[in-house]
Amino acid sequence: MEVFIEPIGRLMNEFSKLPGVGKKTAQRYAYRVINMTPAEAQEFAAAIIGVKEKVHFCKVCGNFTEGDVCDICRTRDSSTICVVKEPKDVIALEKLHEYRGVYHVLHGVIDPMNGVTPNDIRIRELLDRINGGNVQEVIMATNPDVEGEATAMYIAKLLKPLGVKVTRLARGIAVGSEIEYADDVTLARALIERKEI
Amino acid sequence: MEVFIEPIGRLMNEFSKLPGVGKKTAQRYAYRVINMTPAEAQEFAAAIIGVKEKVHFCKVCGNFTEGDVCDICRTRDSSTICVVKEPKDVIALEKLHEYRGVYHVLHGVIDPMNGVTPNDIRIRELLDRINGGNVQEVIMATNPDVEGEATAMYIAKLLKPLGVKVTRLARGIAVGSEIEYADDVTLARALIERKEI
Repeated sequence: MEVFIEPIGRLMNEFSKLPGVGKKTAQRYAYRVINMTPAEAQEFAAAIIGVKEKVHFCKVCGNFTEGDVCDICRTRDSSTICVVKEPKDVIALEKLHEYRGVYHVLHGVIDPMNGVTPNDIRIRELLDRINGGNVQEVIMATNPDVEGEATAMYIAKLLKPLGVKVTRLARGIAVGSEIEYADDVTLARALIERKEI
Repeated sequence: MEVFIEPIGRLMNEFSKLPGVGKKTAQRYAYRVINMTPAEAQEFAAAIIGVKEKVHFCKVCGNFTEGDVCDICRTRDSSTICVVKEPKDVIALEKLHEYRGVYHVLHGVIDPMNGVTPNDIRIRELLDRINGGNVQEVIMATNPDVEGEATAMYIAKLLKPLGVKVTRLARGIAVGSEIEYADDVTLARALIERKEI
C-alpha cells in the first residue's frame, strides 16, 4: 500500500479488518471518509467507540444490552426460553414479531474439532436459570448444522431430568444453512411447528 | 432497526453511509466491531479521525498529502503534468511505476447537466502552473466517458495557445469505463501510447 499516504493506508488497513472487505473496498470506504465533513467523521468514530463502551452482555440471557439486564429479559414471558448460538440469531427471531418468550445466548456451540467443549459456552448459566425459575419450555434454536444439532441434543439430555419441556425448531429451516440468513416465512413456520425432542 | 439497541443501530447507520453497504452488511460490520478489543476499536476510531485531520490537498497538484506540498510534487519531474479527475486516479497510475512526472487533480470534470462548470474544477490552477513553470507536456488522463472527453478537449483548447504539448491517454482504455478500475496492462499501454490532441 506504499502508494497511499500513511493516514489513508492506516484507515484502509482498519477497514480491511471488517468481514469480506478487500483492498479495493477498503480504499473506497477510506475515500468516502475523507469526503465526510469533520463532524460526520467524528460521529462515525464516536459510534465505534460508543458500541464498545455501551454494549454489554445481559447478565441473564447473554444478549447485547446497554444496562445490566436486557429489555427482553425485563419485560417478557420468562416461562419460555429460546436458546440460540449468537446475538444475531436473536435479531433474526425478533424480526418475526412472533415469539413472546425470552432468550438464552450460548455464545457458541459445542465443537470438539475446534476445541469448544460444553464448559466453553453458556450451558451452566442456562441450567441455573431453569433451576432458579418457573421455566416450562426451552426451545432449542441452534443452527441446523452438525454442531448446532449436537449442542441441542446435549442440552436436551441435561434438561429432560429437570422436568422441563424441550422443543426444537421444526425442520422447515434448510439443513446446513444458518438461522441468520433464513427467510422470515421459513423461520416463522419453523417456530410455530417446533417439536418436542 | 428497532430490534437493535441504540448503540448498535447507530453504528449500523454510520456503516450504511459507506458506498455499497446495505443493512445486512452494516450489521455484520457492527458485530465485528463489538467483537473487537477496546484497543482495536480505539485504533479504528482514531484512524477515521486521523484521516480527516491529517489528510489535506496538495497546494500544487490537489492530490492528498499530509503536508503543504505532496511528495510527488516535491521530488518528481515537473515538466510533465498528468491531469486526472480524482485522487484515486493518481493511485491507479502510480501503481504502474511507469510515470515519472507530476499530476494535477481537477477534483471533478465539466458536467453542465449536473451544474459543474469549468470554474468549479481546478482548471485555473492548472493554467497558473503552466504559466509559471517549465511545463513541456500535459497528459490528459480524465476518464474516457462523455464528461471526461469534453473536459480533456476543453483544457486542450486552453493550453494549445500557451505552446505546451497536450496529449491524451491512448484509447487502450475501454470507452465508458473508469480509470480507477482499468487493469494495469491496459492502463500502462494507454500511457505509453498517449497521442497528441
